[in-house]
Amino acid sequence: MLFEKIRSEILAHNSYVVGAEGEAVVIDPRRDCQIYAEIAESNDFKITTIFETHKNEDYVIGSRDLARITGAEILHGARENFRFGTSVHEGDTFRLGPLELEVIETPGHTVESISILLRDRSVSADPLMIFTGDALFAGDVGRTDLAGESKRREMSEMLYASLHEKILPLPDGVIVCPAHGAGSVCGGNISDREYTTIGFEKAANPILSMSKEEFVEYKMNEKIYEPPYFEMMRRLNREGPPLLYSLPHLSAYSARELRSLLDGKAQIIDIRSPTSFAGGHIPGTLNIWRDGLPIYMGYYLNYDDPIVLVDDFNLDLDRVVRYCVRLGYDNIAGYLADGFAAWFKQGEEIERTGTWSPSDLAEHLDDPSVYILDVRKIGQREEKGYIQGSHHIYVGHLEEHLSEIPEDKRIVVHCDVGYKGSIAASILQKHGFSNVINLLGGTIGWEAANYPMIKEEEELYAAPAA
Amino acid sequence: MLFEKIRSEILAHNSYVVGAEGEAVVIDPRRDCQIYAEIAESNDFKITTIFETHKNEDYVIGSRDLARITGAEILHGARENFRFGTSVHEGDTFRLGPLELEVIETPGHTVESISILLRDRSVSADPLMIFTGDALFAGDVGRTDLAGESKRREMSEMLYASLHEKILPLPDGVIVCPAHGAGSVCGGNISDREYTTIGFEKAANPILSMSKEEFVEYKMNEKIYEPPYFEMMRRLNREGPPLLYSLPHLSAYSARELRSLLDGKAQIIDIRSPTSFAGGHIPGTLNIWRDGLPIYMGYYLNYDDPIVLVDDFNLDLDRVVRYCVRLGYDNIAGYLADGFAAWFKQGEEIERTGTWSPSDLAEHLDDPSVYILDVRKIGQREEKGYIQGSHHIYVGHLEEHLSEIPEDKRIVVHCDVGYKGSIAASILQKHGFSNVINLLGGTIGWEAANYPMIKEEEELYAAPAA
Amino acid sequence: MLFEKIRSEILAHNSYVVGAEGEAVVIDPRRDCQIYAEIAESNDFKITTIFETHKNEDYVIGSRDLARITGAEILHGARENFRFGTSVHEGDTFRLGPLELEVIETPGHTVESISILLRDRSVSADPLMIFTGDALFAGDVGRTDLAGESKRREMSEMLYASLHEKILPLPDGVIVCPAHGAGSVCGGNISDREYTTIGFEKAANPILSMSKEEFVEYKMNEKIYEPPYFEMMRRLNREGPPLLYSLPHLSAYSARELRSLLDGKAQIIDIRSPTSFAGGHIPGTLNIWRDGLPIYMGYYLNYDDPIVLVDDFNLDLDRVVRYCVRLGYDNIAGYLADGFAAWFKQGEEIERTGTWSPSDLAEHLDDPSVYILDVRKIGQREEKGYIQGSHHIYVGHLEEHLSEIPEDKRIVVHCDVGYKGSIAASILQKHGFSNVINLLGGTIGWEAANYPMIKEEEELYAAPAA
Amino acid sequence: MLFEKIRSEILAHNSYVVGAEGEAVVIDPRRDCQIYAEIAESNDFKITTIFETHKNEDYVIGSRDLARITGAEILHGARENFRFGTSVHEGDTFRLGPLELEVIETPGHTVESISILLRDRSVSADPLMIFTGDALFAGDVGRTDLAGESKRREMSEMLYASLHEKILPLPDGVIVCPAHGAGSVCGGNISDREYTTIGFEKAANPILSMSKEEFVEYKMNEKIYEPPYFEMMRRLNREGPPLLYSLPHLSAYSARELRSLLDGKAQIIDIRSPTSFAGGHIPGTLNIWRDGLPIYMGYYLNYDDPIVLVDDFNLDLDRVVRYCVRLGYDNIAGYLADGFAAWFKQGEEIERTGTWSPSDLAEHLDDPSVYILDVRKIGQREEKGYIQGSHHIYVGHLEEHLSEIPEDKRIVVHCDVGYKGSIAASILQKHGFSNVINLLGGTIGWEAANYPMIKEEEELYAAPAA
Repeated sequence: MLFEKIRSEILAHNSYVVGAEGEAVVIDPRRDCQIYAEIAESNDFKITTIFETHKNEDYVIGSRDLARITGAEILHGARENFRFGTSVHEGDTFRLGPLELEVIETPGHTVESISILLRDRSVSADPLMIFTGDALFAGDVGRTDLAGESKRREMSEMLYASLHEKILPLPDGVIVCPAHGAGSVCGGNISDREYTTIGFEKAANPILSMSKEEFVEYKMNEKIYEPPYFEMMRRLNREGPPLLYSLPHLSAYSARELRSLLDGKAQIIDIRSPTSFAGGHIPGTLNIWRDGLPIYMGYYLNYDDPIVLVDDFNLDLDRVVRYCVRLGYDNIAGYLADGFAAWFKQGEEIERTGTWSPSDLAEHLDDPSVYILDVRKIGQREEKGYIQGSHHIYVGHLEEHLSEIPEDKRIVVHCDVGYKGSIAASILQKHGFSNVINLLGGTIGWEAANYPMIKEEEELYAAPAA
Repeated sequence: MLFEKIRSEILAHNSYVVGAEGEAVVIDPRRDCQIYAEIAESNDFKITTIFETHKNEDYVIGSRDLARITGAEILHGARENFRFGTSVHEGDTFRLGPLELEVIETPGHTVESISILLRDRSVSADPLMIFTGDALFAGDVGRTDLAGESKRREMSEMLYASLHEKILPLPDGVIVCPAHGAGSVCGGNISDREYTTIGFEKAANPILSMSKEEFVEYKMNEKIYEPPYFEMMRRLNREGPPLLYSLPHLSAYSARELRSLLDGKAQIIDIRSPTSFAGGHIPGTLNIWRDGLPIYMGYYLNYDDPIVLVDDFNLDLDRVVRYCVRLGYDNIAGYLADGFAAWFKQGEEIERTGTWSPSDLAEHLDDPSVYILDVRKIGQREEKGYIQGSHHIYVGHLEEHLSEIPEDKRIVVHCDVGYKGSIAASILQKHGFSNVINLLGGTIGWEAANYPMIKEEEELYAAPAA
Repeated sequence: MLFEKIRSEILAHNSYVVGAEGEAVVIDPRRDCQIYAEIAESNDFKITTIFETHKNEDYVIGSRDLARITGAEILHGARENFRFGTSVHEGDTFRLGPLELEVIETPGHTVESISILLRDRSVSADPLMIFTGDALFAGDVGRTDLAGESKRREMSEMLYASLHEKILPLPDGVIVCPAHGAGSVCGGNISDREYTTIGFEKAANPILSMSKEEFVEYKMNEKIYEPPYFEMMRRLNREGPPLLYSLPHLSAYSARELRSLLDGKAQIIDIRSPTSFAGGHIPGTLNIWRDGLPIYMGYYLNYDDPIVLVDDFNLDLDRVVRYCVRLGYDNIAGYLADGFAAWFKQGEEIERTGTWSPSDLAEHLDDPSVYILDVRKIGQREEKGYIQGSHHIYVGHLEEHLSEIPEDKRIVVHCDVGYKGSIAASILQKHGFSNVINLLGGTIGWEAANYPMIKEEEELYAAPAA
Repeated sequence: MLFEKIRSEILAHNSYVVGAEGEAVVIDPRRDCQIYAEIAESNDFKITTIFETHKNEDYVIGSRDLARITGAEILHGARENFRFGTSVHEGDTFRLGPLELEVIETPGHTVESISILLRDRSVSADPLMIFTGDALFAGDVGRTDLAGESKRREMSEMLYASLHEKILPLPDGVIVCPAHGAGSVCGGNISDREYTTIGFEKAANPILSMSKEEFVEYKMNEKIYEPPYFEMMRRLNREGPPLLYSLPHLSAYSARELRSLLDGKAQIIDIRSPTSFAGGHIPGTLNIWRDGLPIYMGYYLNYDDPIVLVDDFNLDLDRVVRYCVRLGYDNIAGYLADGFAAWFKQGEEIERTGTWSPSDLAEHLDDPSVYILDVRKIGQREEKGYIQGSHHIYVGHLEEHLSEIPEDKRIVVHCDVGYKGSIAASILQKHGFSNVINLLGGTIGWEAANYPMIKEEEELYAAPAA
């Protein structure tokens, strides 16, 4: 039996290859799908079938590319109007030698969501594994808000039924293989267990012990942001995404070329660390540190204008390209040759961002010239508390709320660590705020340095989608 | 939570890396242990602890090398007189952030065998995983014969107790991580499930539903061979194996140099396929196909004289070197440059082996000049049946039983496929048998071609260690 | 200054990347062109220009694919009717920072052949390097026969002029970078010097010291074979080859699927060694050892029917795929999963080829039942001599000359080593010759074993294209 | 003929593998020498001989490690008292099939320096290549100052003789393969030609057209710094360096562990970019950007106390480890897990450095509170000019000249780009200077922004070793 779990970093997306007797299936392949073909080839397996557990909204599915190179058939749930692939229904079974894969309809996250139950018929009628897609995660369950507020209650009830009538009645020993791990935007509290079981989730996942009413109430009140690129993902994954063929090539741009792009529509992204951005950057550029791209680029970047990267040393850009294409950003175009130093070697102007440590901020807590801006998720603010006097706008919504921020003050932005604070700082500077400071360490550093967090029940800002 | 399973091919040895909050443990590291250090480094984890579930007998443990490069502490069971590392006892616990590792003594395979129980104390008191070493496998349990016939009953009873009093009472949802997968010489019938659980094993592993008496009887009658190199492994793994530092470099030998080695003590191993060996080989050399080395080299090779490989195209020899050092064969020295063609380009004599298809053999079943030699495991012969008129000597014991084979007949050797048959053929030719034929396809091909297998209860040859 | 030479194995094709100040040119890119993009990216260079020194006939040029991924401009000589790219002319210069590239028209191999002269204007007006395409090699010069017999004299005169009026007058210190190295089918006697200079070639290349008359006479009498696929290459490279995007994926075929292909049009190629093919093979299949593919597949394979590979262990098939696409064989489709053993595990019939050592043949030199067939190049036979009584048909032309071979004799085929002999043996067996033997070691082994070669001036077989 | 040039980045050290007929030599191997063994193995060559062209002073030679893994013999010049290897003398020749290697004594850089002349005896008596070590580079010649001022004239005269009597009389077409490329500390003006020839050097290398008197005068006045680690390299390379076996493993240090090291003797090196260091760093740490390590670490780091790295994202640290061991820094111990963010996540204090653009500095040129410190090489200052009012201390000598710098001013440090300026800034901050600013862009950015450089003949600071 071939079993491989393929993790896509940061997106925390899990896909799986399962095979026996020369044939293999892939569940929820990512778009840079060469890895599945390589696993199959190095094991002398042929990929014959691709399952999509649901219409993913956080990344571009790789089914069509993988089908192109392997000839495999694409299967997904029947209750969505897919423009490609074939529908499967409750109880459909597929064989791989002694292995049997059974389709279980588990709606709730989406209406057409399915889970795949795996049995080894040569040894037992008991199932061995279940691939739960976005229905059940380690420590969490799927989002029910993405179909819109009007359908949220209905989706939540469906998910409760799927969990309690389809999944949880399975034997405790069944291994649960979800489509996402910790850190995913598809769940607010997914645990970092790499593997789990029905039995362990029943013991350790608090959401599963709620009554139906508690569950629906909990899901109705859950606040998770929805990045704007989800809309594009849903459309692509329903209609069939464009074929990728191979990873885009990054062109090296000289500093001169980059400067000429500054007035155009190019999307110049500084992928350096918050300190590197603070020490000097190209005026007007957006800072999203490299591993923040899969989570945050979908808030700020469009799918048309070329994306150009600015790094310190241009290391491991191949990974950044993968991040982009997984989210459909095939407009990733190039990078600044020789890094940011190429910019200042030309004698160009640079912009700086202030950096403060917790103790620096502590000295200014009562300074009226200082405006403290918390850009964390509203849920974090509510759960963990906040720094005295701080205001809240979620980093993903900052550009729509700039008018709420005073122009004549020193703006101290902070998140929980300092990375998202730097995104926010770069947005503020881009929009003309001249005195912007990023709190290095964020609220975690603040608490580590023994400064107090205020935990009231107040809510300063309500995320529209929360 | 960091969780990685590292599989060593063919040996079917599993080792594991588990970590949290910057610290990691490695369980049963293999000797070419750079991979663990790389996993730790690429995840920003520090390896602090190495567990040995037991004194392994089928490979050289990598604990000392891994401790050398990481500074980690080596831990193993208390009931063996190890010359290195530290003893742990029932109930000892170790923390990795929220993770807790608890030692459970599970003797039976060896007296000092331990299992490691993993809990995530941040979410549940229920255990999540258990690392069972050679106590419990997917579909099988550990060998109890290696301590010798005199202790076999005692070891079997201990194993029964370990399984039924320590491991099986755990919740069904606990994931079982054994030290071996399918194909290992450490179990006769290990299944190829990559992951399993207590619950699934209780449902699917027939050995676990035996009564104590049935279990002990079953283990007393189990016939598994013990390759002679096990003795060396046990000694090394008790005393502490020599440090490896890095993989040995293979020297390129010219055909001229190789010929000069033929009269000396060098161990020249032809790692080509059975057909390639049959089509022409260096007279007097042993044929073990490349992926057969981890299983069969331990029967034939000593640890002193240089080992030199003969291949067709010298592809992927790095893998062969790993096979060697995992079994302690640091005397792997080199290979024939430019492959077997270098030999015949010199105009040297070659030796050939006959090859027969099933239909070729079928025509000679009653031919008195033909002597059919079955070199499979005796258990296979008993379970699957045999070809009419065939005699049996296990391939690993062939050299000690040559006198049983008639010198004046055509010897048709066969195994189940054809690889081990070629080992046997090469041994026969080396010892002067001039008319040797390998049945391509073996008994599997024989049956596939619809020729009959005889399934009596008779036993033609009893393996001494079986 | 960036300078990288990229060698494509076996084809012995050289391509080059040259760059300065962030911009690079590629000269004669191969079709799997990702390597150039990677070199550029890892050095922060942008590929802006692609030079084709001539319309290559032995491989598919990668210009269009490389232009697709980099946006570079394609340049080639003006005297061919290319359907893509831009023409350059004598004296055209291109700058890369201080580097200057000057086009020199050097017809002879083809009419539109150009060489590229490289100067570093920051230090000297003297040229540093010249990229000579197929005009001048280390130890040899380009072929002049490919435009057809009728133009051969004219092409030879042109080449003489290009060499003696354009290239050799350059300073002795100029480094010569040709498009091919030793082993290429584009020259009969290319030396294996990795780098050479004008001065060294003048001293060491005997063809360069010929008078014009001697030179033309020499080129008129030169006998080099022209594989049939050259015609396809010329067409593709003139019209613009199809885009490759990425390497084809190889599908794993089961033995059952392979058998079902045997009666169809699939081209099943056994890429194993001569001994492995001899020890057993699928009846009717062609044997071209893996590294013989770039030289010999162009004689036997068509561009339409799927190509399926049979190997022993399916190692490094990625390399074989590259061989295929470089010659335009995008119809490479798959391989037999689990190797040839999968065939015989099914109990299928196998076919064998005899193998003889030189001493085996020596015993049969006067045996009238033996027919010795020499399949070397006719030039080798003339230069090195032949085995007494042997007949000659070049391996590439064997299928057209089968009627010359007696059907009732034992056919002993030989080449110089034994690989091409196995190609020939497989062709004979495919066409019904039942008693075929390959001489392992060929003429080199024959001489190494101290058997005589006959060196008369007779010519047994004249290659049509020679 | 096997010919491979192996470039070690930044050190700009070239080593070479040359082979024929199964045997190969390596010239000047680097310490992480696995690459030579791999080249040999993948080409079926055996490395039999290692040449050291001279006792290197800028890196640890890999001869002993390479000899350990290959069994090769180590050869070097006779006029040094090496504690390992074998002496060779003028005219000694070595054969590799048709290739002949001839030793030519070419003293001057060191007394025992040798060059290796390569002929292909099968085609010509003319030499094809010469390996010149540190005698002749592309565009430059070897240093003659390292034996000390007292011997400098004598060494210069020797080098002149070696060049004009031994090397330059060779035919123009001979390819020159030196031990260093552009950027090496072993020559002040080595060109970036990847390959060159005797003829091209005679045309383009101005030093070669000097008379003996001019040459000696030029070499007597040449100002090149000598990093203090050279002394260690000379000792190791004379006595035989310690065996490396494999690259050191880097341990992940938590922020907590790192803080505990701050008071000890650990050498904490911040390898981030100048802007990242400026935006925030651990107080008291030294900043050498990652690719500056091979050039500058030898000025500041000792060989005893553990070296711990601080990076942003811990990318490609393997390369940094190679840099360290090539210079003998086997005390490279670890890195800060999760990068600099781990530091500020703990709420720790951070230190910042100012950054100025050229226009920022231009506004303060006459500001008496500003002290401009030029840390470039004195030769650059003399040749390129300087910024008005600036003072000069070479970055490598800064720690010995701190008393020359006013403590009460804003110190604006600059180099030519900004990297070495950041080294200097970090040294100043470490020693208590509180107001330190690094000029981003350095003099190159300054001039690019059209600000003036003053080019007088004055010399503000004379480098002791210059």
